[in-house]
Amino acid sequence: MYKKDIIFSMSKKDIIFAIMLLLIPVSFAAEYKEWGASVVFISAGLAIIPLASYLGLATEEIAVVVGPNLGGLLNATFGNATELIIAFFALKSGLIEVVKATITGSIISNLLLVMGFSMFLGGLRYKEQEFQPTAARLNASTMNLAVIAILIPTAVQYTSTGIAQPIIQKLSVAVAVILILVYGLTLLFSMKTHAYLYDVGVSEIEDSEGEIPEEKKPNIWLWVGVLFVVTIAVAVESELLVDSLEEATKALNLSALFTGVILLPIIGNAAEHATAVTVAMKNKMDLSVSVAMGSSMQIALFVAPVLVIAGTLIGQPMDLDFNPFELVAVAVSVLIANSISSDGQSNWLEGSLLLATYMVLGFAFFFHPVVEGLG
Amino acid sequence: MYKKDIIFSMSKKDIIFAIMLLLIPVSFAAEYKEWGASVVFISAGLAIIPLASYLGLATEEIAVVVGPNLGGLLNATFGNATELIIAFFALKSGLIEVVKATITGSIISNLLLVMGFSMFLGGLRYKEQEFQPTAARLNASTMNLAVIAILIPTAVQYTSTGIAQPIIQKLSVAVAVILILVYGLTLLFSMKTHAYLYDVGVSEIEDSEGEIPEEKKPNIWLWVGVLFVVTIAVAVESELLVDSLEEATKALNLSALFTGVILLPIIGNAAEHATAVTVAMKNKMDLSVSVAMGSSMQIALFVAPVLVIAGTLIGQPMDLDFNPFELVAVAVSVLIANSISSDGQSNWLEGSLLLATYMVLGFAFFFHPVVEGLG
Amino acid sequence: MYKKDIIFSMSKKDIIFAIMLLLIPVSFAAEYKEWGASVVFISAGLAIIPLASYLGLATEEIAVVVGPNLGGLLNATFGNATELIIAFFALKSGLIEVVKATITGSIISNLLLVMGFSMFLGGLRYKEQEFQPTAARLNASTMNLAVIAILIPTAVQYTSTGIAQPIIQKLSVAVAVILILVYGLTLLFSMKTHAYLYDVGVSEIEDSEGEIPEEKKPNIWLWVGVLFVVTIAVAVESELLVDSLEEATKALNLSALFTGVILLPIIGNAAEHATAVTVAMKNKMDLSVSVAMGSSMQIALFVAPVLVIAGTLIGQPMDLDFNPFELVAVAVSVLIANSISSDGQSNWLEGSLLLATYMVLGFAFFFHPVVEGLG
Repeated sequence: MYKKDIIFSMSKKDIIFAIMLLLIPVSFAAEYKEWGASVVFISAGLAIIPLASYLGLATEEIAVVVGPNLGGLLNATFGNATELIIAFFALKSGLIEVVKATITGSIISNLLLVMGFSMFLGGLRYKEQEFQPTAARLNASTMNLAVIAILIPTAVQYTSTGIAQPIIQKLSVAVAVILILVYGLTLLFSMKTHAYLYDVGVSEIEDSEGEIPEEKKPNIWLWVGVLFVVTIAVAVESELLVDSLEEATKALNLSALFTGVILLPIIGNAAEHATAVTVAMKNKMDLSVSVAMGSSMQIALFVAPVLVIAGTLIGQPMDLDFNPFELVAVAVSVLIANSISSDGQSNWLEGSLLLATYMVLGFAFFFHPVVEGLG
Repeated sequence: MYKKDIIFSMSKKDIIFAIMLLLIPVSFAAEYKEWGASVVFISAGLAIIPLASYLGLATEEIAVVVGPNLGGLLNATFGNATELIIAFFALKSGLIEVVKATITGSIISNLLLVMGFSMFLGGLRYKEQEFQPTAARLNASTMNLAVIAILIPTAVQYTSTGIAQPIIQKLSVAVAVILILVYGLTLLFSMKTHAYLYDVGVSEIEDSEGEIPEEKKPNIWLWVGVLFVVTIAVAVESELLVDSLEEATKALNLSALFTGVILLPIIGNAAEHATAVTVAMKNKMDLSVSVAMGSSMQIALFVAPVLVIAGTLIGQPMDLDFNPFELVAVAVSVLIANSISSDGQSNWLEGSLLLATYMVLGFAFFFHPVVEGLG
Repeated sequence: MYKKDIIFSMSKKDIIFAIMLLLIPVSFAAEYKEWGASVVFISAGLAIIPLASYLGLATEEIAVVVGPNLGGLLNATFGNATELIIAFFALKSGLIEVVKATITGSIISNLLLVMGFSMFLGGLRYKEQEFQPTAARLNASTMNLAVIAILIPTAVQYTSTGIAQPIIQKLSVAVAVILILVYGLTLLFSMKTHAYLYDVGVSEIEDSEGEIPEEKKPNIWLWVGVLFVVTIAVAVESELLVDSLEEATKALNLSALFTGVILLPIIGNAAEHATAVTVAMKNKMDLSVSVAMGSSMQIALFVAPVLVIAGTLIGQPMDLDFNPFELVAVAVSVLIANSISSDGQSNWLEGSLLLATYMVLGFAFFFHPVVEGLG
């Protein structure tokens, strides 16, 4: 009975996602029939959610075929493909402040919203849930470094007066290069030299697939095709989303800071969100925590530095000088997530605390006065 | 012999408290005979200390009769009644900055002064003292959230320019509502769904009463009467204290910030202080730590939001925009208290470190220049 | 074979240090033949490295003779003699900002560079290295307090406007007195009341000496002589270093902040650095971590307050008002070092994370605009 319930909830998700695909033509229609920027923005935003989920699925299936090493690398690189694509289009359109807000927002929403809902909903079903603290702690340390590193240029800017923008830009590029190196080391560590530390998570992923994969390996060409088509669809919808963003947020009376920090990350992280909550409700907290923490770690270690470097290449230089309140919000999120995850246990109250922190920060960003350079 | 020593120290406390009650008439005489604001301030302040202790005693006795659920709620709500009453009268007199300073000061003094003295004096008697880290950690996480939440408006104000006061006020009310919700969830968690986690503490409270309560339940009407009379007495003395505050601190050459952060919390927390130290010296560190942490948690989760909401109702709107140095001081106190309590062990050096941090902060507040709006 | 390797690496170090002693006459020649400030600066800086190592050796040998109590005190006091001597001469020359930068730089470099290299190089040889978390945690708590305390005057200054310099000076002296008291308590704790907690480290030091010291106690007068001569040599070279500092850093195009935070601490801590890395490669992580943490703790608890008090005595009053970015850098270093050391395990990735944080901070200080008062 309990198992049936899960299967039912899985397929319920599938049905919802299939229906949401209908929003792709809606977003096109809205764009070309000129139904208004808000309609384009909302329909494109919602259409990206199932696409991101299929992107993740295709990556995982291909990863199974190509083997653990290359597969792991593929998974790690494509894991945040949606965020990266949305951010890239926003960067190309010169919405640099929005892109920066999306980076901090993704870190915050993974740590507080995704992990919070996982612990809360999982905790309603199971009195206490456990996860291996070793991997969680190592993730936490890596995340601490990554988050500290991307916030250092902001701190330099905030604690000195009259620092020239080119210097912050140079510092940002230097930080980006160090972070990408650290990202490489992390992959080396988790896939080669200390892979055994992460075994728990992997076996849980396999378990969570449900059936035993009896020799029927996934058809790689089919999935490469899916990956290709879905990536293009994500890119197209992202462009619609970004193009309508400025006008839509003005119509909806939202500041661009709020849009970047709160709204866009919810869209970009919807797939991880669904996965983390689903496995938490199956009491696989190891996997749930590692999805949430791993995702915010990848944003800081990979997505943010790639955007900094891509920005200089496409002539839209993006530094890592965030709004000081973003620094506060990220620091606060990391502190509270560490404090809650470090003991390897969770319950519904801890989930509520994470969600409450998210709500408080959400209100703060909502009330934060519009900052210059943010539409 | 050792037991006798405790009983002796208990009754010594009782005698001192009984003598301190004589300060009630003194404070009245000082007020009506116009002996000067300083005399009123000091006598009223000292008179509140034994009253707060009797308030706690009456609440506990009634809690025993009405049963664990309602009793726990009663205990939690009346636990900081003294702080709440003093703060309410200060708020009514428009001393908003003093009230805010008292909030941060109560958090700081519980974490550093109360926990510090408990660990130091307990550690002089026992080489190493242990307490259950699970409840301590959960308390720490809740406290982290609460403290972060009440400091967010200050951070918003400090990291932006030209933010209007009404916006900070709205944000403060939103934060207050979230905090009261979280407080409700905490009570639900600790009394209903996960009460077993907190059992250790409770059994220790019962033990610490000394005798087995053989069927002779406390006389509820007697204690309700005591609660009623003592609450009125606390209210009257608080009003004397608050009315003489501005003049007295000027005469004593103390800034209002120092008075609010250092002086008032020592008065308001004296009862918890005595309890925490007494049980620590009986090697009941679980209880001692939970009194100190629980008290600062309640200030942040319950007293502060209630004051924000009460302020808007009585036409003395109080926001949560603290002096930035208060933010630093609270953050520092929480960090060091977490770092010391997270391992479930304490010794005299850890107590000294907490006390040293308190002394450093005390000096900092003493030397801090007078802030506008603070008398 | 493995043992041989160690012995070889030990004597390699000895040979290098002996060769580096030749830089003493070079620095003199450079000074009197006027070969330029840069040559004096570099040769004096490098000459101090072997001298610091011999200073440590002499202290340890004398400590063995005079017994654990006095010896421990001697070790603790002379442990940072080199930093203290360099800082004292810089203070005497009025380079107050450089001295302050050296203090924060020493804390940062011990926690990130020394501990980072130890964990990284140790981790390349051993898959996982363990150390006793109890002593590490106690050290961490003490260090947290110390670091918080020395940063409080900066926070006071940064969060208020128009605070007079004499007030910051008074506050700094008060903090210094509290810190020296805490330092005394720490010694009492680790040598008298709770010495058993630190036994692991001590036995490892003895082991790491290699041979069993069969009754042949070191010749105390020889070593007192060595201590005397080496201390004078360190003092002389420090004076050359400090006198050439301003001109040399200008010629090398380095800001005085960068010199103070990054360059001088590498020279001053070279001896601890060599020890910590060597013992880490012998899998004695307990000792390695305690050298790194202990050294930064001593800087904050002993060297910094002594310099504040010495400054007032020699008429070069030094307050503890650091550059705000130094505050950020130290806070960040402490946070990440705590997060990595708290689980009592290390591996090469954790070492890399510490080194990466150091590199990021190094870049930040390199790009930090020149601050007034800093040459």
